[in-house]
Amino acid sequence: MVKNMGKNNKKLWGGRFLSSTNTKTEHFTESLSVDIRLYKYDIKGSIAHAEMLGKTGIIPQKDSVKIIKGLKKIQTDIESCNFRFSVSDEDIHMAVERALTDDIGEPAKKLHTARSRNDQITLDMKMYLKDAIKNMIVLIEDLQGNLAEKAYAYADAVFPGMTHMQLAMPVTFGHYLLSFIHMFERDQSRLKDIFGRADEMPLGACALAGTNLPIDRLYVAKKLGFSRVSRNSMDAVSDRDYIIETLAAVSMIGIHLSRLCEDLVVYSSSALNIINLPEGFCTGSSMMPHKKNPDVAEIVRGKTGNLIGNLVSILVTMKALPMAYNRDMQEDKKPLFDSVDTVCGCLEIISELMKSVTLNSGALNKILGADLGLLATDLAEYLVTKGIPFREAHNIIGRMMLSDTALKNPREITLKELRKFSDKFGPDSTKLLDMKNSAANKKSLGGAAPVGVKKEIRKWLKKNR
Amino acid sequence: MVKNMGKNNKKLWGGRFLSSTNTKTEHFTESLSVDIRLYKYDIKGSIAHAEMLGKTGIIPQKDSVKIIKGLKKIQTDIESCNFRFSVSDEDIHMAVERALTDDIGEPAKKLHTARSRNDQITLDMKMYLKDAIKNMIVLIEDLQGNLAEKAYAYADAVFPGMTHMQLAMPVTFGHYLLSFIHMFERDQSRLKDIFGRADEMPLGACALAGTNLPIDRLYVAKKLGFSRVSRNSMDAVSDRDYIIETLAAVSMIGIHLSRLCEDLVVYSSSALNIINLPEGFCTGSSMMPHKKNPDVAEIVRGKTGNLIGNLVSILVTMKALPMAYNRDMQEDKKPLFDSVDTVCGCLEIISELMKSVTLNSGALNKILGADLGLLATDLAEYLVTKGIPFREAHNIIGRMMLSDTALKNPREITLKELRKFSDKFGPDSTKLLDMKNSAANKKSLGGAAPVGVKKEIRKWLKKNR
Amino acid sequence: MVKNMGKNNKKLWGGRFLSSTNTKTEHFTESLSVDIRLYKYDIKGSIAHAEMLGKTGIIPQKDSVKIIKGLKKIQTDIESCNFRFSVSDEDIHMAVERALTDDIGEPAKKLHTARSRNDQITLDMKMYLKDAIKNMIVLIEDLQGNLAEKAYAYADAVFPGMTHMQLAMPVTFGHYLLSFIHMFERDQSRLKDIFGRADEMPLGACALAGTNLPIDRLYVAKKLGFSRVSRNSMDAVSDRDYIIETLAAVSMIGIHLSRLCEDLVVYSSSALNIINLPEGFCTGSSMMPHKKNPDVAEIVRGKTGNLIGNLVSILVTMKALPMAYNRDMQEDKKPLFDSVDTVCGCLEIISELMKSVTLNSGALNKILGADLGLLATDLAEYLVTKGIPFREAHNIIGRMMLSDTALKNPREITLKELRKFSDKFGPDSTKLLDMKNSAANKKSLGGAAPVGVKKEIRKWLKKNR
Amino acid sequence: MVKNMGKNNKKLWGGRFLSSTNTKTEHFTESLSVDIRLYKYDIKGSIAHAEMLGKTGIIPQKDSVKIIKGLKKIQTDIESCNFRFSVSDEDIHMAVERALTDDIGEPAKKLHTARSRNDQITLDMKMYLKDAIKNMIVLIEDLQGNLAEKAYAYADAVFPGMTHMQLAMPVTFGHYLLSFIHMFERDQSRLKDIFGRADEMPLGACALAGTNLPIDRLYVAKKLGFSRVSRNSMDAVSDRDYIIETLAAVSMIGIHLSRLCEDLVVYSSSALNIINLPEGFCTGSSMMPHKKNPDVAEIVRGKTGNLIGNLVSILVTMKALPMAYNRDMQEDKKPLFDSVDTVCGCLEIISELMKSVTLNSGALNKILGADLGLLATDLAEYLVTKGIPFREAHNIIGRMMLSDTALKNPREITLKELRKFSDKFGPDSTKLLDMKNSAANKKSLGGAAPVGVKKEIRKWLKKNR
Repeated sequence: MVKNMGKNNKKLWGGRFLSSTNTKTEHFTESLSVDIRLYKYDIKGSIAHAEMLGKTGIIPQKDSVKIIKGLKKIQTDIESCNFRFSVSDEDIHMAVERALTDDIGEPAKKLHTARSRNDQITLDMKMYLKDAIKNMIVLIEDLQGNLAEKAYAYADAVFPGMTHMQLAMPVTFGHYLLSFIHMFERDQSRLKDIFGRADEMPLGACALAGTNLPIDRLYVAKKLGFSRVSRNSMDAVSDRDYIIETLAAVSMIGIHLSRLCEDLVVYSSSALNIINLPEGFCTGSSMMPHKKNPDVAEIVRGKTGNLIGNLVSILVTMKALPMAYNRDMQEDKKPLFDSVDTVCGCLEIISELMKSVTLNSGALNKILGADLGLLATDLAEYLVTKGIPFREAHNIIGRMMLSDTALKNPREITLKELRKFSDKFGPDSTKLLDMKNSAANKKSLGGAAPVGVKKEIRKWLKKNR
Repeated sequence: MVKNMGKNNKKLWGGRFLSSTNTKTEHFTESLSVDIRLYKYDIKGSIAHAEMLGKTGIIPQKDSVKIIKGLKKIQTDIESCNFRFSVSDEDIHMAVERALTDDIGEPAKKLHTARSRNDQITLDMKMYLKDAIKNMIVLIEDLQGNLAEKAYAYADAVFPGMTHMQLAMPVTFGHYLLSFIHMFERDQSRLKDIFGRADEMPLGACALAGTNLPIDRLYVAKKLGFSRVSRNSMDAVSDRDYIIETLAAVSMIGIHLSRLCEDLVVYSSSALNIINLPEGFCTGSSMMPHKKNPDVAEIVRGKTGNLIGNLVSILVTMKALPMAYNRDMQEDKKPLFDSVDTVCGCLEIISELMKSVTLNSGALNKILGADLGLLATDLAEYLVTKGIPFREAHNIIGRMMLSDTALKNPREITLKELRKFSDKFGPDSTKLLDMKNSAANKKSLGGAAPVGVKKEIRKWLKKNR
Repeated sequence: MVKNMGKNNKKLWGGRFLSSTNTKTEHFTESLSVDIRLYKYDIKGSIAHAEMLGKTGIIPQKDSVKIIKGLKKIQTDIESCNFRFSVSDEDIHMAVERALTDDIGEPAKKLHTARSRNDQITLDMKMYLKDAIKNMIVLIEDLQGNLAEKAYAYADAVFPGMTHMQLAMPVTFGHYLLSFIHMFERDQSRLKDIFGRADEMPLGACALAGTNLPIDRLYVAKKLGFSRVSRNSMDAVSDRDYIIETLAAVSMIGIHLSRLCEDLVVYSSSALNIINLPEGFCTGSSMMPHKKNPDVAEIVRGKTGNLIGNLVSILVTMKALPMAYNRDMQEDKKPLFDSVDTVCGCLEIISELMKSVTLNSGALNKILGADLGLLATDLAEYLVTKGIPFREAHNIIGRMMLSDTALKNPREITLKELRKFSDKFGPDSTKLLDMKNSAANKKSLGGAAPVGVKKEIRKWLKKNR
Repeated sequence: MVKNMGKNNKKLWGGRFLSSTNTKTEHFTESLSVDIRLYKYDIKGSIAHAEMLGKTGIIPQKDSVKIIKGLKKIQTDIESCNFRFSVSDEDIHMAVERALTDDIGEPAKKLHTARSRNDQITLDMKMYLKDAIKNMIVLIEDLQGNLAEKAYAYADAVFPGMTHMQLAMPVTFGHYLLSFIHMFERDQSRLKDIFGRADEMPLGACALAGTNLPIDRLYVAKKLGFSRVSRNSMDAVSDRDYIIETLAAVSMIGIHLSRLCEDLVVYSSSALNIINLPEGFCTGSSMMPHKKNPDVAEIVRGKTGNLIGNLVSILVTMKALPMAYNRDMQEDKKPLFDSVDTVCGCLEIISELMKSVTLNSGALNKILGADLGLLATDLAEYLVTKGIPFREAHNIIGRMMLSDTALKNPREITLKELRKFSDKFGPDSTKLLDMKNSAANKKSLGGAAPVGVKKEIRKWLKKNR
């Protein structure tokens, strides 16, 4: 913020004020340093508004033309760094109006006709949000695409499915990766729903009651690409639902990313080591010469706190605010911008990282080879097909897990040994003692069997590429 | 929880355990005291599952029939308080399975075939959630209906529109009430979107990988009224998105209610007193004989904390959980049940309360009569129609606000007095000095003018009644 | 809540009310179902109050005696389940006063002299809180004691210190466990500070302004074991800091427990398996016969969400409440009681569990034997003692980590091999290739060396036992 | 961040890395843009560390001297903007070490001996925090001082005490203001407790295990003004309690400020208008010429959301992190810095604003004159002194509140009129019908009577000025 003009009588709203704004107040209340990034939406909105004012005859057509030309010049100035901002401008709206006044004089004083900053800011925010949502959707699709390609490459690669971080059943790495595609698909779905609700043009609500002047809100909505206009002026200026629900949806993306990253950290830990994280996404230690730390995954996991914190921030701010606009609502921007930036950064880098993740087959085979438990459920279900009630079969295999049999490499267990636990085990049962077969047998809809997984993957590859 | 059976070898999953569960563990880990309320969903799900097992031949048809009969009996027993629960049952699933086993013996041991508690609990929760959402939508519609009727009755009643809790412009009470109908409409919209995403049948995902047995998931989905089935077994058992997004949507309802209640508290405060809260919704003081406190509004406002706290609770619990099911997720129930119960209670009582709210016209008239400021914007817009740039008009009226004119009752201000500030004021301008006219002039789309407001209200009355 | 008495004119505050409380309102606003657990504090406080009223002559001494006798009988009745509560009593204060009136008649009507529920409830809550804090401190000390004993038993047991979940340096399990004792020590310290601040008697603040009657607050404070009285009546009734800061301190305990539990889950995971969780604290799977899941650790980890959620709940509720008492504040009880109960349950079971945790030396030795990286920092620091700048030494050992040397069992690496990387390695350097020596060499104050660790442990054992 | 040096082999920890850091990773993981503000603590810590290394002979004394000189030059360079930062530096520690190496060569490579960034960052943060706490305490004392002076000026000014935002009893504005001094006193007390716990020097914990080298931690602690050293190296590097508890304490300050601001907004609202906010702390409307909005109070109230959000952010980030350091913890800085900055800004401006707040006696008198309710409790307590049980007195006055008497100006009510409700009213009772007397009669300890209030105020004035 370059310069404080300091005199309150220079405020565009200063008519009824006898004394000037306290300097500390000016610095404390300014939002320009945050809402400056809305400039292009603010200008675009003002252009549409000015066109409408001209078209309806509320201001002369020629003034409208001058205003629009002036606004375009301001945009150019900002983008070429030839624009001088001042703390005394308070916010992006006033900064633009003042510059316009400096530039084109009298006609500029007509721009704010039938408009308040109350409806203007929520217009700017909705325009920003719609773009931000589109961008997040693209990033999610990119991540889904990379996950789908990785899943395709590893559709047959047996992977230890875990629950409670305990070995559970063999799945494939492809199946595992697909599960995240589904999570991100719901994230997309939520973002699209929010887009639909936010796609409602608020300008014309003015301060809170609408206006006496014959504005044409539908015209403005069309110009700005909104599908409809708000139908209650008080709600229009006091509504921040679209920000809250975006921050909730973004927190959910954070939850999904944090779960993926937790797995990456654990699976690539030096003691387990079944996933290789590329060095380019790791860093070393300043003290310990041997370290290769999964920093990217950890930071993404850590940033979940940031995303949830921002959601709480706006919820607390909005709690119990009286109708209609209150200045507290200025505090909506920091959490929104921060969360959108954060989640976009996270999606982008995790998308990149997932492209280069590989499996460490040595460590994987050691785990998969050594654990009969992973096949316990298959053995129980086999007994079910032989007529043993599942609960009984569960008990029989439970006992097997306590025996020496469970200590062996599954591939070395003989039919004879199985029959010590139940004589229902037939010759075909030894085929169960193979991790690849186990995964392949999970043919139920949505199950781990590669045949179904591949079909699903192809669907996603088609969708996202 | 009546009785601890205490022996671990009685656990249905106890086959591989040598020692019994620690008693403290049993009490600490049990979820029955919370998930007991899912019993009817659990039983309904089990019936559909048993039908499917019979139909596909995974278990004999006759066993399926016995199981279903037994399950129905258990439901009757629970509902007639003839069912004995025990802490050692851990959860509702085990309680039902054990009772079934006690009752019908052998066939009961076949019920849990091709099923895990991992997919069973998320099925139960989704069935509960779908009903809860339907119920919340009904309550919201009821509240909207009451608001619409009240708005209709007060569509012409001038009310002081405020921003920053400062008098801003005249609106009507009907217009004010409509703004809340819009908020609650978005709440409904969100709930419907969540319903759509949650309407996906997870059973058959089993522990996390699906099953080797030839189950028919589509059959179960159809029986239970789901529109589709989940397509990835790992995602199906580890997904709690539907709970998180419900708690987010419910928090937003809380925000809206808290804002309405804040207004009710302020507007009915003894110093302002423009709204009458019916005595039936107030209580007195144990010490101060004169008090009539707006307790209902305050408690609803206060419970917003509860709703947001529950959202944070589940977000924190889910953060960075590894794939797939983890026992932490058991903690999803308390916040969900609590928030649904809380918000339903709040919606219901506020709906009731709003029916009997009335305006205190004496106090209202005192405020409306005394404040020229409420008409300041109209005066400025009048000057705009006379060709004065808005920013200049704003300044002129700003100065008027500092003058003695502003101290007068608006109705007593003469044309001559207005013309002291601008000679553009013509004879028609004195019509502006009337609060009713002011509201009536806000004819812009979505504005405060009764003509438009009434049209909107009729739309809502039709929708919700 | 047994019975609704239903007539508003029966309310003790009902004098100025014409109509009776709406039934829904009665159910919605009652807090009795929650604050019933405060009964003994409420009665104790009332006894002290009645004594003071008698002693100061505000009421006759004989009435005071009758009141006290009546109150004691009510306590006995409640504790022997001979007390009948009713929803129409609203809260524990009114329930007690009504019962007292039913029992002793006229004198009971004098009990509430110079008192309001506003100061009464915060008195009850502070008395509850002081007991709750004392109890939490005992539970923390018990946990610290168990950790210290386990640490003593494993003071020499080499354990893989990790950062970023990557093997970092050898420490001992004793040293590792000590780190949690320190966390819990800070938790205790916080609780004690809160106790000190909360130890301020609020009764006598009355509704918000104090009273005209000649009460003796210091007498009451002394009777109830408070060290001082509040000095501003408005603050006294509107203050809930003590609840918020307790919930913050309890959330921190939750953070510490969640970190311990995360480690327990990971270290006991079937793929890593360096810690044995006793079966008594695990449960099995309903579907997978082989599972032994670390449920207790997971549920404790999951409940962190609950604790943080409750903190947020009260923060949101208190945000922007006007002076002084508001009914919103009734919502302070549920989160406080819930968090105190939850954290006590967690501390207790984790204390129990930690007693029986053991190390799995087989798996530990496999990890420790195979990883030269754990000794990398020692090798670099050795070179420092030979005059090589640390940054250079770090680089030399970094290169060693990329060589075949790093693939060997550290114990089998020869001096010759070390000298391939630097000729500064002398004969004494091979002693570094031993995990036990490595830990023993960390003799810096607070370091991992058993000699220092044991000294610390003895300090804690003395403190807590 | 000026320039990306881009080659991974330039990383100070790069010895064991074959490939260079991905550019996106470098940007994603860098913390320099946030931790740059720690530079002076980082340099101060490094100077103490270098002194210790020289003194203990771990590095040659002459190298220690060179390092210290070099570090001082870097500080000068940064403060005179002659320092060039680069993204590839990752963080402030590496930026300083690299610059030192560029500057003094070989000796610089010895600085990081017996140190890790893990203990270095927590040292920096604690030094920052201790200063931040001192600063917050000063700001709180300043605010308390201003409140005390204002309270002194208004110690006799009768003010309507409210509960539930309903008129309750007369207090003085001085008494009201004192209540906030007490809140802020507890805030200070909390900050001091945190200071005490944080005043523990962590350097020497190194990566997590301590070091083999003979460091002297007590020497470093003394140099840096810490009262003691940490006693467990693992806890020392993984502890972030001090940040969490600061954010909790700061949230509480936010709660207190939000309550004060809520009152300011309501009391200065145009409909109530009993407090005058100075124009310098208000702003106008871009559309409505008459508006004078309480922006400062609203923004401070709104920022409570920010403060609570930051607390949640760090709680979520720390939840369930494994021992010991994890990169997630890098996310601790943004919320801490942001909350400290925010709360300092809020304290400062509210302190300023409170200096110039005045009462609007006209509006006050109108409210105070019109409401017998404010005196209802006095009347009831009068009857108590005449032997009527309080509950009966409460009832009698309750009925009075429903009668025409309650509609009169209290000063005009006669003894005869009072005696219509109870013949216990004697001639002295009409003195009760005066707001000033009412406040003056609240002589109970901590009550509203000016005599006691002034004594308290003098205590605070002495303390804070």
